[in-house]
Amino acid sequence: MRIAVIGAGLMGADHAKIVAEDLPGTRLQVICDMDATRARSVADATGAADVANDPEGVIARADVDAVIVASPDFTHAPLSLAAIRAGKPVLCEKPLSQSSAECLGVMEAEIAAGRRFVQLGFMRRYDQSYVEMRRALAEGRIGRALMMHNFHRNVETPAADFTGAMAITNSAPHEFDVVRHVLGCEYASIAAWQPRRSDARVAPVVMVLETTDGQIVNIEINNNAAYGYDVRAELVGEGGSIAMNPVAYTRMDQAMAQSTGYDADWRSRYAEAYRRQNRAFLRFAETGVFPEIGSSAWDGYAAAVVAETGVRALTSGQKQPVQMMQKPEFYK
Amino acid sequence: MRIAVIGAGLMGADHAKIVAEDLPGTRLQVICDMDATRARSVADATGAADVANDPEGVIARADVDAVIVASPDFTHAPLSLAAIRAGKPVLCEKPLSQSSAECLGVMEAEIAAGRRFVQLGFMRRYDQSYVEMRRALAEGRIGRALMMHNFHRNVETPAADFTGAMAITNSAPHEFDVVRHVLGCEYASIAAWQPRRSDARVAPVVMVLETTDGQIVNIEINNNAAYGYDVRAELVGEGGSIAMNPVAYTRMDQAMAQSTGYDADWRSRYAEAYRRQNRAFLRFAETGVFPEIGSSAWDGYAAAVVAETGVRALTSGQKQPVQMMQKPEFYK
Amino acid sequence: MRIAVIGAGLMGADHAKIVAEDLPGTRLQVICDMDATRARSVADATGAADVANDPEGVIARADVDAVIVASPDFTHAPLSLAAIRAGKPVLCEKPLSQSSAECLGVMEAEIAAGRRFVQLGFMRRYDQSYVEMRRALAEGRIGRALMMHNFHRNVETPAADFTGAMAITNSAPHEFDVVRHVLGCEYASIAAWQPRRSDARVAPVVMVLETTDGQIVNIEINNNAAYGYDVRAELVGEGGSIAMNPVAYTRMDQAMAQSTGYDADWRSRYAEAYRRQNRAFLRFAETGVFPEIGSSAWDGYAAAVVAETGVRALTSGQKQPVQMMQKPEFYK
Amino acid sequence: MRIAVIGAGLMGADHAKIVAEDLPGTRLQVICDMDATRARSVADATGAADVANDPEGVIARADVDAVIVASPDFTHAPLSLAAIRAGKPVLCEKPLSQSSAECLGVMEAEIAAGRRFVQLGFMRRYDQSYVEMRRALAEGRIGRALMMHNFHRNVETPAADFTGAMAITNSAPHEFDVVRHVLGCEYASIAAWQPRRSDARVAPVVMVLETTDGQIVNIEINNNAAYGYDVRAELVGEGGSIAMNPVAYTRMDQAMAQSTGYDADWRSRYAEAYRRQNRAFLRFAETGVFPEIGSSAWDGYAAAVVAETGVRALTSGQKQPVQMMQKPEFYK
Repeated sequence: MRIAVIGAGLMGADHAKIVAEDLPGTRLQVICDMDATRARSVADATGAADVANDPEGVIARADVDAVIVASPDFTHAPLSLAAIRAGKPVLCEKPLSQSSAECLGVMEAEIAAGRRFVQLGFMRRYDQSYVEMRRALAEGRIGRALMMHNFHRNVETPAADFTGAMAITNSAPHEFDVVRHVLGCEYASIAAWQPRRSDARVAPVVMVLETTDGQIVNIEINNNAAYGYDVRAELVGEGGSIAMNPVAYTRMDQAMAQSTGYDADWRSRYAEAYRRQNRAFLRFAETGVFPEIGSSAWDGYAAAVVAETGVRALTSGQKQPVQMMQKPEFYK
Repeated sequence: MRIAVIGAGLMGADHAKIVAEDLPGTRLQVICDMDATRARSVADATGAADVANDPEGVIARADVDAVIVASPDFTHAPLSLAAIRAGKPVLCEKPLSQSSAECLGVMEAEIAAGRRFVQLGFMRRYDQSYVEMRRALAEGRIGRALMMHNFHRNVETPAADFTGAMAITNSAPHEFDVVRHVLGCEYASIAAWQPRRSDARVAPVVMVLETTDGQIVNIEINNNAAYGYDVRAELVGEGGSIAMNPVAYTRMDQAMAQSTGYDADWRSRYAEAYRRQNRAFLRFAETGVFPEIGSSAWDGYAAAVVAETGVRALTSGQKQPVQMMQKPEFYK
Repeated sequence: MRIAVIGAGLMGADHAKIVAEDLPGTRLQVICDMDATRARSVADATGAADVANDPEGVIARADVDAVIVASPDFTHAPLSLAAIRAGKPVLCEKPLSQSSAECLGVMEAEIAAGRRFVQLGFMRRYDQSYVEMRRALAEGRIGRALMMHNFHRNVETPAADFTGAMAITNSAPHEFDVVRHVLGCEYASIAAWQPRRSDARVAPVVMVLETTDGQIVNIEINNNAAYGYDVRAELVGEGGSIAMNPVAYTRMDQAMAQSTGYDADWRSRYAEAYRRQNRAFLRFAETGVFPEIGSSAWDGYAAAVVAETGVRALTSGQKQPVQMMQKPEFYK
Repeated sequence: MRIAVIGAGLMGADHAKIVAEDLPGTRLQVICDMDATRARSVADATGAADVANDPEGVIARADVDAVIVASPDFTHAPLSLAAIRAGKPVLCEKPLSQSSAECLGVMEAEIAAGRRFVQLGFMRRYDQSYVEMRRALAEGRIGRALMMHNFHRNVETPAADFTGAMAITNSAPHEFDVVRHVLGCEYASIAAWQPRRSDARVAPVVMVLETTDGQIVNIEINNNAAYGYDVRAELVGEGGSIAMNPVAYTRMDQAMAQSTGYDADWRSRYAEAYRRQNRAFLRFAETGVFPEIGSSAWDGYAAAVVAETGVRALTSGQKQPVQMMQKPEFYK
């Protein structure tokens, strides 16, 4: 299986590294980036066979069997469409698009092609904590799901002009997707708040969503939490509760305190989830069978719709209904 | 200091026991209850000097210096008024009244009397966890407060016909009060949701409140949580976060799991908070100086207003503004 | 019940405070100390009726019903004997004596007097963690006891010339006593080690003891642990294990770590255990019935014998048999 | 890099799986086992190119570049010698031999060959917890090491006739090795105890070791701990302490308790350590540079000597000196 990685930034370099170091049976064929130096640097670090700067050309190459798209967000949908046209499986980093309409276009192309090509990079579905939460629910260990509480905290925003709307469209989709995935239903409404900060940085966004099955979902996105990269989740059922447990391999006793460390960012926290996701993508590319817990174009559409609605909820200060199309047979 | 306890139910018996066993310098003078057998039973258990069945008469007795009111909720305001008339300090169990108008009446009487008489039984203010959270905020250890997340879970509701509105008026006031106390401001709005349960039991109530200082507050009241009595709180600041830590004196390794136990109800969880509160009340009764962190009639009014508004929010499905009177000079 | 406190140092002041603030039904009659200023200061802080500087005279006073001894260690046995002679219950701080022979003298006096007078201040027996461990064992929840692992860590030694032998005779007796208490048997042998430190401070002492019931007991005494006051214990049974859980009321998220605080010393850690112990002593003084889990003169003797043997084990580098007299009927 | 796996039991199957699924750049060339069915089954599951039943023949094959030995313990040293003779790198499961004399033979062969061939399967060195403990020590974060406390607990022994001596020779070597590795020194003495059990199962073994640098090391091996597979370690320094933290991805709230699960055995607990170790072996095989934290034949010898001495300590009931040869230049 010869793989092309489109985009040689942080995410692309990580994907190339996973292919090179963790996916026996694959060949890292091309690293493609507008910036030739960057492409070369990643290729050298991973032993990729070739570099390029023309994504659509790369996708069409005869010596490329599957594609990983990790280029800027606005290219995700067009390059997914190119992969569908080329008849090649694509693992596309999230979001598929911030526009639900553009997601619809990808779905239509896939449906027209008659088979699945697009797997989205909502890697949290492969994180062991969510896997165990979903399993506990399926096995009836906590009874029917009632609520899910979710917290997403970064040390600080990359950009100074990050806004609450961007917290909803850029950071929250991971939460939107994994909660849908764990609960197995869609959203019916969303409301959003922001506390006031004393400085110009973006304040946290607090959201409450209703699902189509009558559950209540809390999501906090705190992009300037200062203290660490910290993702939490609790799934509350009628008979008990299951929560993500922080993973730390050691604890320190020092200076009148016992402490465990936080991750600096998502890369160490989700390293294993990315590996599992990419292995699932490899099997998908080999067999054509879409991964049981993989994210599809439909999931990309769902995340886009709720994010768009969330922005309106934040702007208006009013709870908004989430209005989605019917799920096509093709994605069931 | 000769103390009368009005009400010999679960709460009254606990208060009598605290006076008898933990408050040197006091004399448990009268246990008063409509049910003479119950009054006698508590008096015998605690060595109280006398029993009675006439609360207003007891409050007026010359050999009673201070009063603890733990009789049914609807008697709280009338008996507090009686204590004010008698010029005696009263520790009144929460709520002062579920009607904010009735709370106003108590405030007016107290203001007219020219001094404080009423301390409310919002004992959580004395719980070590909240004490530490409030102190961390005051000391600037987490920066400015942005959010507070609060969870209140009981094993099950006492009554089968408990409703979501009752969750807001009966259980949530502890949260309403202690959050106001920790944050040091009032509420500006409240919104409320309930997930659907598969049975007839009352579903959890999820609330989001805005404060007058621009913080966002989450409160979950889950009266049928099944698994244990579990209260959680996290105070999130701009520079860090401080959370209530579960207290367990031992942990067990057994049957492929490590576990710590939950309390069965509030009595073991808050035993020390009640003791501290009642000691503070004793000092108040002795000195006339209202306890620094005690709950006043104003705090009872504030809790009643937000609960009334919360019920409207739940019923209407819409966020509601919390409309309070200006805080009287007297309570500043 | 009129109580005299002998010794107005740190421990005596704490005992006086507990009597004054936590033991309704008692009167703090005398604070006795060689240093009149110190006695007066404690008396003023606690509202004690009188001060004195003659311990034996105080014990004999007609207006003193019970005695708490918190004066220097070498006075414990003589003053306990004085209390026995005066026919008054005495709560004597540990150790009864560092000499097992002197402990024997107290036992003989008590046996001759025909009733119990001496309760020792091994307050850990009243600590909730050990209470739960002992109960779990009694209820068969972990099967037969096999091992107990114990760790006692202080921030630093009070004196620069503290030695390993002193760690065994001064700090370890708390461990020796509470382990005997939890396991319900005596020691058969003891071995001891010390690692090398890079400075002149006393190094930790590591001990392994065998019990008469065939259990193995580890005890680490680390008087210069630097990081906090930290006591740990784990009781391992054939069917599971129960361990002391650290108690912290809050946890902090800050600077890339989550942390909980340690106590600075034993006073906050064991405040509730002291209160419970002293209440038990009060009931003993009132009723003459020795507390079910109280430490007796026999327990003081047992702790002294094992400490003496432990010092020999450390000095010789060889495991030593613990040789105790048969337990007198009187103490069964 | 063409790899042969000798032994198709539990360990061999796991090694073959790691080669097939986690080591890009390798080819799983032969699965060798006395039992042809077993070899075939593992080969089929992992896509191995060939099967065989003659280990020495396999090691000599021209199409085999490196060898993983996971056959019965008594074959480890002979097959390691065969690999040395064939000039091929070998990852040999622990123990190299239970006889220190036989380990010496392997060392001599390797020294005679003039380069390293043997890496031992003490995979714990690659476990993240120990990596962090070792790093904290190297970075001076806890000061000089004073003690290390280690606990190894299995649910139950595989065989009914497992003995305390076998606990020392079969289970404890993992502890012996990783403690030496973390502390960076050798053992000077060892003492051992066993509590009495109420049944015929092997009781835990408790050991205390002194190191050549004056540290004290506790090791508990509890092969019938009943409650779970549980490995613990704490490294205590002069300035603080660092301990292994249990890893759990979720926690459950249910039936009045909060709990996290234990692993059933070492396979899930150390899956990542095995992967890291085998990647390190692959780099060793490719480059000839022995892995920085890999276990060598010398380490196998050291583990064998201390285990042999530990058995004598347990049998004699007396502390025994650990007598090792000088470390050859070759292994420095």
